[in-house]
Amino acid sequence: MFEHCDKLRVRYRDVDYLGVVYYSRYLEYFEVARDEMMRAIGIPYSEFEQKGYAMPVVEVHCIYQKSAHFDEVLTIISRITEMPLARLKIGYTIFRENEDEILVSGYTVHAFINKDGRPVRPPNFFRQLLQAKLA
Amino acid sequence: MFEHCDKLRVRYRDVDYLGVVYYSRYLEYFEVARDEMMRAIGIPYSEFEQKGYAMPVVEVHCIYQKSAHFDEVLTIISRITEMPLARLKIGYTIFRENEDEILVSGYTVHAFINKDGRPVRPPNFFRQLLQAKLA
Amino acid sequence: MFEHCDKLRVRYRDVDYLGVVYYSRYLEYFEVARDEMMRAIGIPYSEFEQKGYAMPVVEVHCIYQKSAHFDEVLTIISRITEMPLARLKIGYTIFRENEDEILVSGYTVHAFINKDGRPVRPPNFFRQLLQAKLA
Amino acid sequence: MFEHCDKLRVRYRDVDYLGVVYYSRYLEYFEVARDEMMRAIGIPYSEFEQKGYAMPVVEVHCIYQKSAHFDEVLTIISRITEMPLARLKIGYTIFRENEDEILVSGYTVHAFINKDGRPVRPPNFFRQLLQAKLA
Repeated sequence: MFEHCDKLRVRYRDVDYLGVVYYSRYLEYFEVARDEMMRAIGIPYSEFEQKGYAMPVVEVHCIYQKSAHFDEVLTIISRITEMPLARLKIGYTIFRENEDEILVSGYTVHAFINKDGRPVRPPNFFRQLLQAKLA
Repeated sequence: MFEHCDKLRVRYRDVDYLGVVYYSRYLEYFEVARDEMMRAIGIPYSEFEQKGYAMPVVEVHCIYQKSAHFDEVLTIISRITEMPLARLKIGYTIFRENEDEILVSGYTVHAFINKDGRPVRPPNFFRQLLQAKLA
Repeated sequence: MFEHCDKLRVRYRDVDYLGVVYYSRYLEYFEVARDEMMRAIGIPYSEFEQKGYAMPVVEVHCIYQKSAHFDEVLTIISRITEMPLARLKIGYTIFRENEDEILVSGYTVHAFINKDGRPVRPPNFFRQLLQAKLA
Repeated sequence: MFEHCDKLRVRYRDVDYLGVVYYSRYLEYFEVARDEMMRAIGIPYSEFEQKGYAMPVVEVHCIYQKSAHFDEVLTIISRITEMPLARLKIGYTIFRENEDEILVSGYTVHAFINKDGRPVRPPNFFRQLLQAKLA
């Protein structure tokens, strides 16, 4: 299993009328965590795209247990547990900084496509980098 | 079962670098469909809040099968199949207008809270309005 | 002068902690109005792009006089007063539906670029369509 | 004059079809810079609100000179040049990290309101903290 940890602060734009983070914003937080995880694996998503690939989301699931509020600092753990054969599953867990109660948890599933938009297997350079982290 | 149908146009702000709707935007589309469904049931969400209740999202699931593009008009079907005992599940299916291939499908699950933020059962006025639609 | 009128409803995602539309959202409303104005002129922005042009925003100005709230229906008037020599200026005024007090007013200024990203003069097909409206 | 410097990374959600940051997103970047500037002044905006005040935006102006792209790190300089009598003006300049060409510049003007939503003069605790920075 490979785990990566990020911090981000809840901004005013993220918060709704109830003073809590609007539900779709967590998917943006997942994206930030995913981006930083890719960078930690050794292939920033911007380079991944420059090599002619993309990793579109094909499924997302999210459980909202507790609310995050304006100006709170959140910890996001993202994790990959398995080498992808065709599709990559990434899990996420969000806490308030220095607390251990889960606020939000979820996962995304990603396909791999080439620059023509055709589904492909995960490219070898990505598999090798990920293998080194999963080992 | 109660079904409600809405149309909306994909705007430039919704579209990412690949020219397709960014994944969290569908949750905003779900919200628009949910709002209009509540209005069709007879209780716009703004009135629901004025009566001292809210319906926070506790779970969301979304399957992305095909992409929607800038300026396309989408049809969103939202549906409630069961009277909620404690939590309300709403399903969504998104098509391109006048086409029958599913682009995105998903659901949200909602709790009911009162103005103190405490979980409550679905308020009677809501149950009665919904019952009339489900019958 | 060419004026175009649109309506849109304030959605939950647009509203901040104070219950009013978050300030950057009005730029998204301007974009919706601009899109529909282009369609009314006879060249939807999606076609404009397919012809190999884009109209990036180079300046925006916005005055916030009164707040718009969740679920209110807004009227947006967009207007072009002059044939663009190099840059196009579009003005916007936002009201609550059926009221005449201005909530927000502003303008955007747009350059024209071709598919290589080079600045160009407004394409002739656009000038001719706009001329017919301004006359 | 008081200046504050922040860094932020352009995320995928911020980028439009042309691969550049969507124009309303810069207002969100301004908000992040403003938040951090308030923290540097000694009164995080969340505390400012807890004391019963808010600083709604009444005007925004923005000049877009060059585009920022996905995954670039931006430097945002925010600045206050004058003690506010009634309204506070904050200027912003955005660069690519370690470059000195201006990408975007702009300003916001803020009113001060109390918890009843009435316009008030800038509260004394804020004036004193700001005075110490401007001196």
